[in-house]
Amino acid sequence: MAPARLIAEPLTRAAFEPFGDVIETQGAEHFAINNGTTERYHDLANIDVTGEGARVIANIFCGEPWVPPIEIKMLERHPLGSQAFMPIGPHPYLAVVADSGADGLPGELKAFLCQCDQGVNYARGIWHHPLLSLEARSDFLVIDRGGPGINLEERTLPSPMLLELSQ
Amino acid sequence: MAPARLIAEPLTRAAFEPFGDVIETQGAEHFAINNGTTERYHDLANIDVTGEGARVIANIFCGEPWVPPIEIKMLERHPLGSQAFMPIGPHPYLAVVADSGADGLPGELKAFLCQCDQGVNYARGIWHHPLLSLEARSDFLVIDRGGPGINLEERTLPSPMLLELSQ
Repeated sequence: MAPARLIAEPLTRAAFEPFGDVIETQGAEHFAINNGTTERYHDLANIDVTGEGARVIANIFCGEPWVPPIEIKMLERHPLGSQAFMPIGPHPYLAVVADSGADGLPGELKAFLCQCDQGVNYARGIWHHPLLSLEARSDFLVIDRGGPGINLEERTLPSPMLLELSQ
Repeated sequence: MAPARLIAEPLTRAAFEPFGDVIETQGAEHFAINNGTTERYHDLANIDVTGEGARVIANIFCGEPWVPPIEIKMLERHPLGSQAFMPIGPHPYLAVVADSGADGLPGELKAFLCQCDQGVNYARGIWHHPLLSLEARSDFLVIDRGGPGINLEERTLPSPMLLELSQ
C-alpha cells in the first residue's frame, strides 16, 4: 500500500498557533528604539523551560538538506522545554507537527513550508519532526533548554507518511 | 580638536571574551544529532536574566544601516540581563563595547567588525553601543530580557569617538 500523503501548507501564525509560535516581523507588535535607527519586533515566542536546573541555551544547528520524496517515519517532543528555530541563511525549510493524540502519542500530522524569514518555536511537549532543511546545508539559531532531566521522547509512526511540498 | 579614532578589529571569541560571547560555529563544541542529518553547535551564549518576574524573550530587530563616518557618542547597558544579537541576513555589522571604568561609567572602548555568520551576546551590565548595522537594512534575532524593572542605562561619552572600519 502506498504511504499516506501529507501536503505542506504555507506557514502562518494562525495555522501554527496550536503548536507554538511563528517568529516573524509580519503582523507582530513593534516599536522604534535606538533613537529611531532600529525597529523592535517584540516578544515573538513563548520561551518556556522547566525542571530543576533548567536554563535557556542558544545553539546553532546545521542541517543537511532533505530531498523529496521525504518520508516522515517518526516524531519527537521535548517535555521540559520549548525549542525555537530561526534560519540564519537564505533557504526555506519544513516544519512537521502533530496534535497530541490518544495516550499522548502523536495524533494528526500537519506540515508547513517555512520561508527563510520565518522562525518556528515548538511549544513544550509538542510532537514535531527533527529539522527538515531544504535546498542546501542550512544553519539555524536554536533556543532551547539546557540542564538535567530527560527532555527527549521519540515515537515511530504506525505507518510512514509521504511529505509533499505542494498539491 | 578632531575626535579620537576607534578602529574596528575583526570579531574573535578571544578578543570579545571580556564582554560576552561570540555565537558562531567556528571553534565551538558540536556533535551530530537527528540520526546524523544535523550538527548541533551547543550552548554558545550565557543567557543571563535576573530580577523578579524576569524571563527570556525573543525579538527581531531591524536596523537601518549606519554609513561611515560613524560617530560614537553614547553607550548603553542592561543591568538585569544579557542581550544576544544573531544576524538573520547577509550583512556585516559593528559591535562597540567598553570596559566598566571608574564609578561604573564606560571605560576604554573597543570596536569589532562582525560577519553575518557571527552573533554577539553582550553580557549583563556590559556597556555597548546600540545596534550598528552596515550596508543595508538588517534583521537580527535578539534574545534578551522581559519583565518588570529598569533594565536600561545610557551614558553620553565625555567626547565622541570616530569609528573606522579598518586602519
